[in-house]
Amino acid sequence: MPKISEKGVQMPASPIRKLTPYADKAKDKGVQVYHLNIGQPDIATPKGMLDAVKNIDFDVWAYTPSEGTLTYRKKLTEYYNKLGYNITPEDILVTVGGSEAITIAMQSCVNEGDEIIIPEPFYANYNGFACISNVVVKPILSYIENSFALPPIAEFEKLITDKTKAIIICNPNNPTGYLYSEEELNALKQLCLKYDLFLFSDEAYREFCYDGRTFISPMHLEGLDQNVVIMDTVSKRYSACGARLGCLITKNKEVIAAGLKFAQARLSPGMVEQIAGAAAVDTPDAYFEQVNKEYTLRRDTLVKRLNDMEGVYCPNPGGAFYVVAKLPIDDADKFCKWMLEDFAHDGKTVMMAPATGFYSSAGSGKNEVRMAYVLNINELNEAMDCLEIALNQYPGKTV
Amino acid sequence: MPKISEKGVQMPASPIRKLTPYADKAKDKGVQVYHLNIGQPDIATPKGMLDAVKNIDFDVWAYTPSEGTLTYRKKLTEYYNKLGYNITPEDILVTVGGSEAITIAMQSCVNEGDEIIIPEPFYANYNGFACISNVVVKPILSYIENSFALPPIAEFEKLITDKTKAIIICNPNNPTGYLYSEEELNALKQLCLKYDLFLFSDEAYREFCYDGRTFISPMHLEGLDQNVVIMDTVSKRYSACGARLGCLITKNKEVIAAGLKFAQARLSPGMVEQIAGAAAVDTPDAYFEQVNKEYTLRRDTLVKRLNDMEGVYCPNPGGAFYVVAKLPIDDADKFCKWMLEDFAHDGKTVMMAPATGFYSSAGSGKNEVRMAYVLNINELNEAMDCLEIALNQYPGKTV
Repeated sequence: MPKISEKGVQMPASPIRKLTPYADKAKDKGVQVYHLNIGQPDIATPKGMLDAVKNIDFDVWAYTPSEGTLTYRKKLTEYYNKLGYNITPEDILVTVGGSEAITIAMQSCVNEGDEIIIPEPFYANYNGFACISNVVVKPILSYIENSFALPPIAEFEKLITDKTKAIIICNPNNPTGYLYSEEELNALKQLCLKYDLFLFSDEAYREFCYDGRTFISPMHLEGLDQNVVIMDTVSKRYSACGARLGCLITKNKEVIAAGLKFAQARLSPGMVEQIAGAAAVDTPDAYFEQVNKEYTLRRDTLVKRLNDMEGVYCPNPGGAFYVVAKLPIDDADKFCKWMLEDFAHDGKTVMMAPATGFYSSAGSGKNEVRMAYVLNINELNEAMDCLEIALNQYPGKTV
Repeated sequence: MPKISEKGVQMPASPIRKLTPYADKAKDKGVQVYHLNIGQPDIATPKGMLDAVKNIDFDVWAYTPSEGTLTYRKKLTEYYNKLGYNITPEDILVTVGGSEAITIAMQSCVNEGDEIIIPEPFYANYNGFACISNVVVKPILSYIENSFALPPIAEFEKLITDKTKAIIICNPNNPTGYLYSEEELNALKQLCLKYDLFLFSDEAYREFCYDGRTFISPMHLEGLDQNVVIMDTVSKRYSACGARLGCLITKNKEVIAAGLKFAQARLSPGMVEQIAGAAAVDTPDAYFEQVNKEYTLRRDTLVKRLNDMEGVYCPNPGGAFYVVAKLPIDDADKFCKWMLEDFAHDGKTVMMAPATGFYSSAGSGKNEVRMAYVLNINELNEAMDCLEIALNQYPGKTV
């Protein structure tokens, strides 16, 4: 029997999904599982986007250009230029989800064995994409005590070698919800210019900034055009995770040209999705206002409930729809598994993502979990009831 | 300015799409371009499949499981088991097009620096996927003189080293249209068992076999379960190239487990596509009978028209919807470009794919082109009129 590859062995399992078999077993036993583990919002997709799908009017479901249709790229340009990105359709490669934007960015910009610095905790699948691309992730710790703010630039500089090629930020951040300030972005700009680094900016959660905060992108900073690569997706913006529609944006023509070759190999992004994505750009502001209000309420509820529990600490994040909370537990992986295998309250339990999977430094995040507030207030409160009781019953509690 | 990666430089451009800028320029000049360069059929997608898209009934366009929905995998199982594959839904990973099935198969099964043997000419994007996966393609020549039949097994054995991990066949073949016989597949089976190799079978064109020929898959061969990985797509079967829906099938549990980790990193295949794909399995036989009749007529027309031209030779292929023809020209790349830049007949010209891009051995295919018979008979005849006149006028003609 032929053996699988070393990469097939080494490829990390998704920390968001690796406990799924235990959740399935709990459900088989009749336990209701509140899914706070994955950023799958319960928010309705905009009607205009779904209507565009229902109203498709073609006979042949055909390939589109590898870079995406001009129609869709023009609509995207309209969307981004309203944000002040000042781009043209030629600066965009339409991708199969934000995931493909990340792999294309890595493969186009970073040599094998070269290093990317990423503040941790970070979106766990960066590890998988780095594994696929043979890129080395150099994590730099951010701390729950200061809400996971950007680590000091001096800490970045300590990590920089002649192999450093890029920095990845996710802003607002998954998993921490932290929203980077203009000062932090300007500091990163100076760093990238000084060391000639790419700045990959994952902006999947751009629309979700709370308490009147303003989102700043590296695209807003002058003089950084050749360094910035935006990795984006419609997944969270329009609650359309299953559309698998994203894009890579850069004004660096060499990166676009290289990225296009990777895009050509896989031929085309989805045709129906691009039709829907074009319609989505016309989503009325009222949709986002409503969604923002809802997420703010959920965040406030979740953060209050968590901080009211004994031994729990959770910063109040400025964006996205995640929190990372510190729990009075010995081991987040054991605890999250225990909640699915051995715990139920009134026939209900909670699935969370152990934060360990979001750290690349071994041993970090052992008493932290990530929660996505993608359930309505009632369910969220019931999930918190479960968690509170579970923390009292858990054999490995530390309070 | 930071530099792109070496891989970004080395990644091959798609031979099918690289002449597109010249086609665009011809169109700008008002010239009508017949596209025989790309396998984008003009055949209507089955109504049931498009209706499934139009009738979507959900509020949240959500992620699906990384391996694909159970509903869709069950319908696929039904389809494959009618063909005698004898699989279960657990043997399937749903992928984003056939393209992703190929990359996941390579990354899960073949170590970096290891070798895959592929009879050439072969589907050009295997080169791109091999580049992405750091896998070395070892081409083995097949010849137009015997219709691009499988090279003798002795020739394969000459290439086998301790780095050889897999063989790829595309059956019926893109670009040659050759349909492998049961004898040829059995010979490959013995070879794979003898040297413990994976057999990757790209079956995108399974439905398109002509003149009453029967399609045989490695899945039909006994004792090869642990070696076979099927790479499939709905693109050609249902003329749904823009759906980006494929799958990887294997009974080798280790390969499925490794492949799932790559699938988890990119989270999910498309949700709407899987709904449409499930509906497509119920496409009535009459659809395929009609399509088959149409392609047979086109193939017969194209092959006759080509062989009637002076100095042209084109075998009559048993499947798919491509031919590779030998033309009396000095250089296929120059000729195909010349037809777009410098030639028009009655305001019309033809875009073809130079066969050089389908060979990995330098210098091969220099007087061959690939044509896809994806236009109706009238257009196909007009395209052949153009080609015939062009061959007379081309400065680099060799007859």
